[in-house]
Amino acid sequence: MGFLTSIAPLVGGLGLFVAWRLFNAVKAEPVGNERMMEIQQAIREGAMAFLSREYRMLLVFEVFVFFLLWMNLGAETALAFLVGAGCSMAAGYFGMQSATESNARTSAAAQASGQGKALQVAFNGGAVMGLSVASLGLLGVGMLFWLYGDAENAKYINGFAMGASSIALFARVGGGIYTKAADVGSDLVGKVEAGIPEDDPRNPGVIADNVGDNVGDVAGMGADIFESYCGSMIATVAIGATLTAQQMIDVGLGVEGASIEAVQAALMSLPLALAVIGLFSSLVGIYAMRSLSNMDPAAALRNSTFIAAGIFLAVALVFVYASAIATGVWWAIVVGTVGGALIGLVTEYYTAAGPVRRIAEASKTGSATNIINGLAVGLESVALPVGIICVSIYVANDVAGLYGIGIAAVGMLATVGVTMTVDAYGPIADNAGGISEMAGLGPDVRKITDGLDAIGNTTAAIGKGFAIGSAALTALALFSAYAMAVNFARAQQGIGPMSIEVTDPSVVIGLFIGGVLPFFIGALTMTSVGRAAGEMVEEIRRQFREVPGLLEGAPDAKPDAARCVDISTAAALREMVLPGATAVVSPVLVGFIFGAEALGGMLAGATLAGVLLALMMANAGGAWDNAKKSIEQGDVEGEGKGSDAHHAAVVGDTVGDPFKDTSGPSMNILIKLMSIVALVIAPLLV
Amino acid sequence: MGFLTSIAPLVGGLGLFVAWRLFNAVKAEPVGNERMMEIQQAIREGAMAFLSREYRMLLVFEVFVFFLLWMNLGAETALAFLVGAGCSMAAGYFGMQSATESNARTSAAAQASGQGKALQVAFNGGAVMGLSVASLGLLGVGMLFWLYGDAENAKYINGFAMGASSIALFARVGGGIYTKAADVGSDLVGKVEAGIPEDDPRNPGVIADNVGDNVGDVAGMGADIFESYCGSMIATVAIGATLTAQQMIDVGLGVEGASIEAVQAALMSLPLALAVIGLFSSLVGIYAMRSLSNMDPAAALRNSTFIAAGIFLAVALVFVYASAIATGVWWAIVVGTVGGALIGLVTEYYTAAGPVRRIAEASKTGSATNIINGLAVGLESVALPVGIICVSIYVANDVAGLYGIGIAAVGMLATVGVTMTVDAYGPIADNAGGISEMAGLGPDVRKITDGLDAIGNTTAAIGKGFAIGSAALTALALFSAYAMAVNFARAQQGIGPMSIEVTDPSVVIGLFIGGVLPFFIGALTMTSVGRAAGEMVEEIRRQFREVPGLLEGAPDAKPDAARCVDISTAAALREMVLPGATAVVSPVLVGFIFGAEALGGMLAGATLAGVLLALMMANAGGAWDNAKKSIEQGDVEGEGKGSDAHHAAVVGDTVGDPFKDTSGPSMNILIKLMSIVALVIAPLLV
Repeated sequence: MGFLTSIAPLVGGLGLFVAWRLFNAVKAEPVGNERMMEIQQAIREGAMAFLSREYRMLLVFEVFVFFLLWMNLGAETALAFLVGAGCSMAAGYFGMQSATESNARTSAAAQASGQGKALQVAFNGGAVMGLSVASLGLLGVGMLFWLYGDAENAKYINGFAMGASSIALFARVGGGIYTKAADVGSDLVGKVEAGIPEDDPRNPGVIADNVGDNVGDVAGMGADIFESYCGSMIATVAIGATLTAQQMIDVGLGVEGASIEAVQAALMSLPLALAVIGLFSSLVGIYAMRSLSNMDPAAALRNSTFIAAGIFLAVALVFVYASAIATGVWWAIVVGTVGGALIGLVTEYYTAAGPVRRIAEASKTGSATNIINGLAVGLESVALPVGIICVSIYVANDVAGLYGIGIAAVGMLATVGVTMTVDAYGPIADNAGGISEMAGLGPDVRKITDGLDAIGNTTAAIGKGFAIGSAALTALALFSAYAMAVNFARAQQGIGPMSIEVTDPSVVIGLFIGGVLPFFIGALTMTSVGRAAGEMVEEIRRQFREVPGLLEGAPDAKPDAARCVDISTAAALREMVLPGATAVVSPVLVGFIFGAEALGGMLAGATLAGVLLALMMANAGGAWDNAKKSIEQGDVEGEGKGSDAHHAAVVGDTVGDPFKDTSGPSMNILIKLMSIVALVIAPLLV
Repeated sequence: MGFLTSIAPLVGGLGLFVAWRLFNAVKAEPVGNERMMEIQQAIREGAMAFLSREYRMLLVFEVFVFFLLWMNLGAETALAFLVGAGCSMAAGYFGMQSATESNARTSAAAQASGQGKALQVAFNGGAVMGLSVASLGLLGVGMLFWLYGDAENAKYINGFAMGASSIALFARVGGGIYTKAADVGSDLVGKVEAGIPEDDPRNPGVIADNVGDNVGDVAGMGADIFESYCGSMIATVAIGATLTAQQMIDVGLGVEGASIEAVQAALMSLPLALAVIGLFSSLVGIYAMRSLSNMDPAAALRNSTFIAAGIFLAVALVFVYASAIATGVWWAIVVGTVGGALIGLVTEYYTAAGPVRRIAEASKTGSATNIINGLAVGLESVALPVGIICVSIYVANDVAGLYGIGIAAVGMLATVGVTMTVDAYGPIADNAGGISEMAGLGPDVRKITDGLDAIGNTTAAIGKGFAIGSAALTALALFSAYAMAVNFARAQQGIGPMSIEVTDPSVVIGLFIGGVLPFFIGALTMTSVGRAAGEMVEEIRRQFREVPGLLEGAPDAKPDAARCVDISTAAALREMVLPGATAVVSPVLVGFIFGAEALGGMLAGATLAGVLLALMMANAGGAWDNAKKSIEQGDVEGEGKGSDAHHAAVVGDTVGDPFKDTSGPSMNILIKLMSIVALVIAPLLV
């Protein structure tokens, strides 16, 4: 085990310490006036209540799976599973704590000290999440690597990824349903029926909407990225552990003169070493924000990411050069890091530039043309990101074989400390905008928080693209690890390697079943949002009808926000069960009924269809959202807020909501979770 | 060569003779009054003008490809390619002739003799198309089989499928863009802006709309099914020709005591023999209509199909039993025939029953919920048809290996004479409805033609499901044939078989590129419809503005329908080039740049994504259409024509139009064409 790898848990601990200090720094900032404290408190309580109910439900599930794993795969895998689940939950908990403390403080900073300070507070709030994700990942995987970091036992670490993945699935699906039920529900009654503005304090659903931003975009997104981060490391370790000497020689993975054992050990410890380098680079990026925060906020956020990526790549080059691994492997890291950034830029293009104008223009002829053009943009937008993924695969494989694909995924995710920080910044800024409006902080403050929120929308779009790209690469790495794990187990029993050939009818059947799953989960989650939003609509209508003076804004008429929070919570927890169970159970069924080859086909089909749908949904949704905003800002001649084109664009935005925030993101986890489950059960499929 | 196979071209000739007689029988019916003749003439001229312009354009393309094929693969393949293209064009031409002669005659029959006679006329008009497709397929493939029906030369026949396929792609894409540009364009101005009913003679776009039904649903659909029909036969012949003795023994394809040569000859000639049996069975089904036409029209159409399928399966069993092929192979035929019918039924469920009610109910809360629910229905609807395809693959492979998959496709398509008849009946009935309205034939006639049209909508939905299912199975058969052809060519050069493994990064890259293509083509075609419909809208608005008295219905104010026909034609021909070229060129590029394995991955990815998108789009589109209709019929309490829910449902219907009639159907051809191109270039990829 190399030095960096051996200190990984300590670096993880250090990262958590920094996160804790940042959290305290945020908490030391003023919350603002009484009304702001009240709102912040309500959001915080709603978010924490959801999290605790969700975690209690998941605990039952995790314990059940824990025993299943123990019985079938032994205590080690089962324990790793629990640790993985625990780390993911802890990351979500820390991030949520921080996000719900920073939102009002961002508003207060905007009021007291202006944009630079507000940006700094929101960014620090996000950094707690970013550092928690990276540090808990390093801590957990690093400790397991201490225990099982050799070729023989490395398979036990897979349980950690499965634990993280199972939490992620429910967090993403549940969070996605929560946030969109609240958002769509309160918009439908508030903006459309009652004609009151967004985030108006009279609307009983507004608190739930703000809770939803945290539940979906902080906890859900965090669990997703945490899973990719750990999954990519673990897949690469698994590939390293199952490489044969011949494979290492064929690809040329080692430096001349190094022993096979030394090369293998170096290959296995590289992912963690890269994660350590990535965390340090992220810290530099995060602290650089102190001197960046007075420049243009969008540039500041971008630069903090670029600084971290640059340092990471440079140090990684030195590290690989000094190791027993061939220096060419570094290129796999480069394509991963650069590929992740490029996918983000493509997403930004499709959700900001020409395509958005096309949709906005099409809104002039009504909702139908708005929808047709949005769907066309979504369909079109899959080509470039997939092209980038293909190039990454090609280069990574060229320099390092299947191992390179794993390393590319690690390279994409190593600086997750800062990329996740920027992601988590978005919902904090969004909340800050809502709080400024609800607390009536006036146009100057509102302008600052709106500006920060607008940038948050862009970073969110980029983050979504990044999340899909990293999920795709992680799933492919896990898939390779799965195939190698099956072959490793077969070799131990003296059976030759399996071959997952597309001309084998059972593989074709697997491919089709796998391809259907993302469509099916997409249908389930879209329907869930519709149903949950319907319940929310009923409740808000009831309150407007039954609470005297509420709609008129009488000072003593208080909406019952807690009731709406409760409806969203209950609906999200209820609706996440079926898609979650489908994702966990189907690879097990296919694997045991149709065999390891069919399961391989299924993973390939699910990954392909999942990535395509996820990109399509995320980009169409983002483009619709921004088309509506661009009409509101008067970018389309002769149209504006309240015009026919705007009404048409609102329809597109509403359709896009579950696309981009519920169904689309669910795909990320679906494909990773299925691959992880396959990897874990691989030894049983021989 | 078996007896049935040897007479295949003669049977094809006989079928054409029957089609010619039916065509004359239709022409002998009265066209109706002068106004009807005038309208019929206008539709006919528009349709024929489109077809001749399209064919002239394609001729250039076909000649170009002909020379390319000649230079690279020799004269035989190139000639077969031309014959295939020619047969496909001829089938489209005959079908179009018949459809455009039967439409007004159906109205006239409804007026003069009532429903039974009208059904008979429309059905006979469709039967000309059905029989032309089946007969020209038998004639062309049968004659080539005379020339090249041995294992050595069978590969030349592949050119025929490629010729048919290339015509089909342009016919489907061009026809799809034509019909929806005209439909959406004239609805947007006529129904929405001017508030005049559908098919109102004042609307200058109405003739183009009626032309579009023929261009899209007769010529486009016919070319699609013709391609599947010939493609499935040719793929199965190709698989039979490349089977090794060992493979035949392993799967148990022959009866005991038969020589390997005899079994292989029997396997190669079985597809044509089944097609001969299927054509005779279809004739029985078509003639049975004479005694069925006075029962409920929906049941009559269904029964004519079932009679044909029953006879086909029974005779096929006797035939297989008497041949050198193991009787178990018959089960592959059964799963194909039954699978095709089941997929049709599932499509009917999703576009008629519960799912449609769900969308109709959701329309109450506006367009956004209508769209969300429609998309959810579309996403959900892929599961069952894909499940049926998987079961078919499983059974077919179980009884006859890869050969079984080809035979299942042949089984699904053998009775195409009658299934295509029912398909072509739809647009004829649709046109008849339009002509009754435009000629003012009164409510009694209108009621009959509306009833026949409504059944046509159901048969169209079933037909779409069937087209996708058969395209999927045909593409898989072609894919298997491709892999075997590559291996056959490798074996001849002493190289071992290739393996298209999903764990091979170049296969993964192929898989992803293949998966992107349907999304990309979907985006192109959706955008094309939008653009072309926009041009149509401008022109109709211009005429309403500039032609005095047109909108008010002044008797001497005539709309310039020819201008609208011309706009649709020009737009369709212009917009079909890019998607068409993409589909033809991309397998060639991937094959030569990344190799035969990557091309295999690409075909798998394109087939998977294409089938999923096609099902999703066709079913969502059909469901939206019928949700709108069900609101119009008062099925949703408190809503009806002109209500808010109805407006919301119209949005869904408009979005669904390019989904179900342009982009969705394009996928069918895309996946078949790519597989065919791969099969043809296979010998060059070694």
